[in-house]
Amino acid sequence: MPRIKLTLAYDGTAYHGWQIQPQQSSIQGKLEAALQKLTQETIRIQGAGRTDAGVHALGQVAHFDTASSFPAHEWIRALNAVLPEDIVVHDVAKVDREFHARFSAKEKEYRYQIFNAKQPAPLERQTRWFVRYVLDVGKMEEAAKALRGSHCFTSFCATDTDVEDHNIDLNQIQIVKKGEQIDIIFRASRFLRYMVRNIVGFLVEVGRGKRFPEEVETILAAMDRRAAGLTAPSHGLILVKVIYSGGQN
Amino acid sequence: MPRIKLTLAYDGTAYHGWQIQPQQSSIQGKLEAALQKLTQETIRIQGAGRTDAGVHALGQVAHFDTASSFPAHEWIRALNAVLPEDIVVHDVAKVDREFHARFSAKEKEYRYQIFNAKQPAPLERQTRWFVRYVLDVGKMEEAAKALRGSHCFTSFCATDTDVEDHNIDLNQIQIVKKGEQIDIIFRASRFLRYMVRNIVGFLVEVGRGKRFPEEVETILAAMDRRAAGLTAPSHGLILVKVIYSGGQN
Repeated sequence: MPRIKLTLAYDGTAYHGWQIQPQQSSIQGKLEAALQKLTQETIRIQGAGRTDAGVHALGQVAHFDTASSFPAHEWIRALNAVLPEDIVVHDVAKVDREFHARFSAKEKEYRYQIFNAKQPAPLERQTRWFVRYVLDVGKMEEAAKALRGSHCFTSFCATDTDVEDHNIDLNQIQIVKKGEQIDIIFRASRFLRYMVRNIVGFLVEVGRGKRFPEEVETILAAMDRRAAGLTAPSHGLILVKVIYSGGQN
Repeated sequence: MPRIKLTLAYDGTAYHGWQIQPQQSSIQGKLEAALQKLTQETIRIQGAGRTDAGVHALGQVAHFDTASSFPAHEWIRALNAVLPEDIVVHDVAKVDREFHARFSAKEKEYRYQIFNAKQPAPLERQTRWFVRYVLDVGKMEEAAKALRGSHCFTSFCATDTDVEDHNIDLNQIQIVKKGEQIDIIFRASRFLRYMVRNIVGFLVEVGRGKRFPEEVETILAAMDRRAAGLTAPSHGLILVKVIYSGGQN
């Protein structure tokens, strides 16, 4: 059976996250329903990462197996015709049976979006965390620099996770300020649950002057979620892209 | 009675436009209801421009008269506490009785936002017109250049308008392309109804190669709405700012 790779974007506002759940609206659920409608097969789809409720994607990747033999551009047209307008397939490719959306991924990029002003921006209220306080971006960058690289990120990881290895190589964590918009870009081969949102929560406290870049070392060493502070809300988070090696990017 | 000037932003998606209408949700209606709640007065608010259904604003301006004597920062806090989250007051100032949001305005800036790609962007579906066709931005700029300046814009004006003078000095019409985003910025002392959306509809047809920059002169001379072609949808349009002379910007 051919294996198909999908690249898709979605507005996560209306969904309880990527993962299919009984009685809840999910991205995976909408995709599987669309595929069932088109193929008359029961298709299980595997995503590169499970985005949480309210989290968006510009370049989520998923794969599935099917007996259908539509050409790639037909899949795009047919899927987008049955999907709701907040989920859009951007690319479809036939891939080797060895390709796995999650296990073949080399790196993922997330972007966390902040709107930093005295009053919120109505047009960005579903894609940026509104932070009213004056933020010292220089201090935030200092703290980000201390977080870059290989660390045990237990202090920035959800406590209810069942993943045991918390050692992550955070290849990139970069802060880009354009006027009232502050974007924080993260790259790593994998992320722990809530890791990006927990790091952003801490960085914003650093920006406000309530925490300090010098604390990073102690917080990481504590290996205790309570050491790092608040979690940024989900609606500012976007899965930007998933990077694969070779020709399957 | 003191006169108050408001500067506000809104997401127009959920509204039937600025202007108050029976049985319809409007920005003006929400503002007047909020003001009535705060002041216990029946307040009529005057906007700088009536945005149509679905049109957004980053810097709409309005004025009203009230017997209340809240200081400016109290107005902002109190109004935003009662307004829905898709309408946000950014600035409040006491102004002279001579100030009029509409008649004192020297210039207005509108931005029309296009998303030009093979597939739509879910996160921008409420603020950008999705155009699938390949657009020749050079040709669009040529046509825009021919539209700049003082002209009779009858061919780009809604036919049901009761405004008689269609001579407009279009001070600026600039096309800015950043990747898949194309923004068209307009500045004039006043605009006719649907003027921006009608110009954008024409420019997109020029970009597609269905119309030509050389036609601008003939279209303007025709003084006939049917000469210019399609109207771009409302959701790509944003009232960016209203400019006043003197200290009341």
